[in-house]
Order: sequence, then C-alpha cells, then structure tokens
Amino acid sequence: MTTIVFPIYDEVTQLDFTIPHQFLTMIPDIKVIVASVGGADVAAQGLVFSNLANLDLIEECDVLCTPGGLGCVDAIENERYMTSVRRLAGKAKYLTSVCSGSLVLAAAGVLKGHRAACHWAWRDMLSDFGVVPDAGRIVRDGNIITGGGVTAGADFSLALIAELRGSDTAQAVQLALEYAPAPPFDSGRPETAPPPLRDAVMAQMNALLGDGRRRIGLVAKGLTEATA
Amino acid sequence: MTTIVFPIYDEVTQLDFTIPHQFLTMIPDIKVIVASVGGADVAAQGLVFSNLANLDLIEECDVLCTPGGLGCVDAIENERYMTSVRRLAGKAKYLTSVCSGSLVLAAAGVLKGHRAACHWAWRDMLSDFGVVPDAGRIVRDGNIITGGGVTAGADFSLALIAELRGSDTAQAVQLALEYAPAPPFDSGRPETAPPPLRDAVMAQMNALLGDGRRRIGLVAKGLTEATA
Repeated sequence: MTTIVFPIYDEVTQLDFTIPHQFLTMIPDIKVIVASVGGADVAAQGLVFSNLANLDLIEECDVLCTPGGLGCVDAIENERYMTSVRRLAGKAKYLTSVCSGSLVLAAAGVLKGHRAACHWAWRDMLSDFGVVPDAGRIVRDGNIITGGGVTAGADFSLALIAELRGSDTAQAVQLALEYAPAPPFDSGRPETAPPPLRDAVMAQMNALLGDGRRRIGLVAKGLTEATA
Repeated sequence: MTTIVFPIYDEVTQLDFTIPHQFLTMIPDIKVIVASVGGADVAAQGLVFSNLANLDLIEECDVLCTPGGLGCVDAIENERYMTSVRRLAGKAKYLTSVCSGSLVLAAAGVLKGHRAACHWAWRDMLSDFGVVPDAGRIVRDGNIITGGGVTAGADFSLALIAELRGSDTAQAVQLALEYAPAPPFDSGRPETAPPPLRDAVMAQMNALLGDGRRRIGLVAKGLTEATA
C-alpha cells in the first residue's frame, strides 16, 4: 500500500488535486487522502469539499502532493498548515506538486537548489526560494516530481503512477480515463498563445494575484534569513 | 449571463464535472450550478461534495451538462433525478454531457436519432436508445454537444466555451489552465493501447459495471415501449 496525501486549503485550484485524485484512485493499492487544517471543509471556485482528513493528525505518507491556486498565498502564510507540510515532507519518499503547489514545497524549504515546475505565470517566484524554475510539464529531480499549471496534473499523474507501479499500470489508467487529449486550440502555453491574448491573461492573473507576489517574496526572505 | 447546470449523483466520476467546472468558472458571466437531488451531499471516489444546489427546484438553465460514471446506472433508474433532467433538457439551449453522461441524456429521451460521444467502453449502449454512437472526442449534432470519456471534458469545455463566448475566450481559458497536454504514453484510446492491456481494462470495467449494462438496456426498452 502506498499512501498519498493532498493537503488542501480554501481557494485551492480544485483541478490541481481532482485530476491526480481521479487518476490515483483507479489503483486499488494506493490510498489517497485529501486533508485540510483541522479537517475543515474547503471551498474552491464555488465547490465545497467536505469529509476531509485532519491534516494536523497525519504523521507521515509515502507521497506528498501539494496543489496550487490563488489560496496558496494564504496557505503559505498559515503556520499551522505549513507545520504539517514540513512534517510530511520530512518523511515522504516523494515530494510532488501540481501548478503553484511547488511554491508551497519551496516555502516549506524542501526544494532549495532543486529544479521544479510551476504554473507559467507564477514560475519565476520559485527563484525567491533558491529553486530553479523549469518550464517542463513534468519535472523530475531526484525524488521530487512536479507538474506545471493545472491540467499538467494529468501528465504528472501518469508519470507518478509509472514511477510507483510501472508503465503498464499507468497506461491502463490512461485508457480507463480515455486520456487522448485533442484540444481544439493551441493556446495552452505562453509560447504558443497569440501574444495579445497572452498579455491579457497575464494581466488578469496578476490582478487576481494582487499582493500575493510581494507576500510570497516576504516568506522567501524570512526563510533565507532563518537558514542563513 | 449564461447558466449551466451539472446534475450530479453518488459515484459520478468526479472528473467528468470537475474539469468543465474549472474551465467554465474562469468566465465571469457564466454561472455554474452543481446540483443534486434534494441538494444532498454527493460522494464520489472518496471525495464528498457538499453545499450543492437542490436539483428539484431548478426550473431551467441555458446549458445542461450531465456527467457520467458508474453511479449513472442508479441515476438513470432514479425517477426523481430523471424528472429534473427531462425538465431542464426541455428548456435548455444546449444539451451537453461528458463520458457516460450521454446515457443519462439518452435515457431522458432527448438524444433519439442524434449522434453522441460516450466513454469508449460504454458507447455501444447508446444504440439501445436509438442514439448513434460516435467515437469523436467532441461530437456536435445541432444543439447537442457531447464529450468522450472523462478527460475529454477538457476538450469539450473549450469547444463549449468557444460556442458560448467565442474562440478568444476559449483560448484565454486554455492558457490560464495551461492546457498543453503531453501525456507520457499513447494509450488513451482502445485503438492505440496495447491490445492485451486494452482487453484487461475492458474486463475490469465490465466487472465494475456489473449488471449495469442489463439495467440500462431495460430502461431503454421501457422508453421505446412508452414512445412506440
């Protein structure tokens, strides 16, 4: 049995963990635990997830997978949440993330000097933590496996399953979930999107992020000073 | 404002609606409503969705989107659920589905004579309802837009957004969610998966489906007799 924990929080991007959750729960001997501080319900884009495990009480897991989202700024500033992330990261065999979830791991101090993926609009912030931003959709550095923005969670999940159970199992899950993507447009990356559209989306994302960039920078500065 | 309703039920495949939910909630003037019979919590693969709208009380919507999953057999047999699906389908501008959700629409009697997509392992059951099974990932037939198995919901969502708001908006959402898929394997369709693996997955799915195929056939037979 392999145990994987998703530590979620309010305004997590729900798809960051619901994709890996769907892929991983296809496998009988993988136990998937979705947890929150105090086991409280989590609201995300209008959905409410309840019946969550109490993150404070989980001692260890084989795989830690931190999802991202706008709420990750609050989560990174939440000492109770981060205490659990650090505790689980300290014992996990694999440290993993989807989207801006890599910033959570970075803020936990466990990615320093390593390469990691992140959502394209947030990726540069990894540098604040001494982490090397990598534009790959699935980035592997030792026991650290990180996925890019949101939907990269599907490709990440197959890579993780292949690592845990072999490529036959990963391919079986791919078939069961009919993951043969055929997007009707080719705008999934800033390099392929029409530039005016890319600039508009970037502006929107920065507006939504608000002072998040500054706040994450402050956390990174505190971490650097504490470990200097 | 465009209103879209996802009528969910226990053991829906959560990704069938969480993907479109994430894509559609990126757009400010689309109202996404996730509803269940009586507004009861819905359990799916270990996740619990709460704070749901009461499906019984929703009079109409612009877009109806039925998700699939093993639980759809029970849902199709649930008269209270199907009464709401038929009421909403009767007034909706677009009838849409992901995965075996097209069987829900078929069982509501609103797809007869039309083409529809479905999960590859369930697709043949559409014929029982006089619906033409189509192996496309996104299938459009008039105001009916249906997606294939589970992850097809991403491609379906972009097509739906392009229809509702134009291709620029769809491309902006694609970029925001970094939907530039790069699966590490090519086993997402029965035509591309290694045949022994395909047969093993098909056997597993049939075991999970149990007597679902027979039960869906009975519903189809009842519908045919009622409308003969």
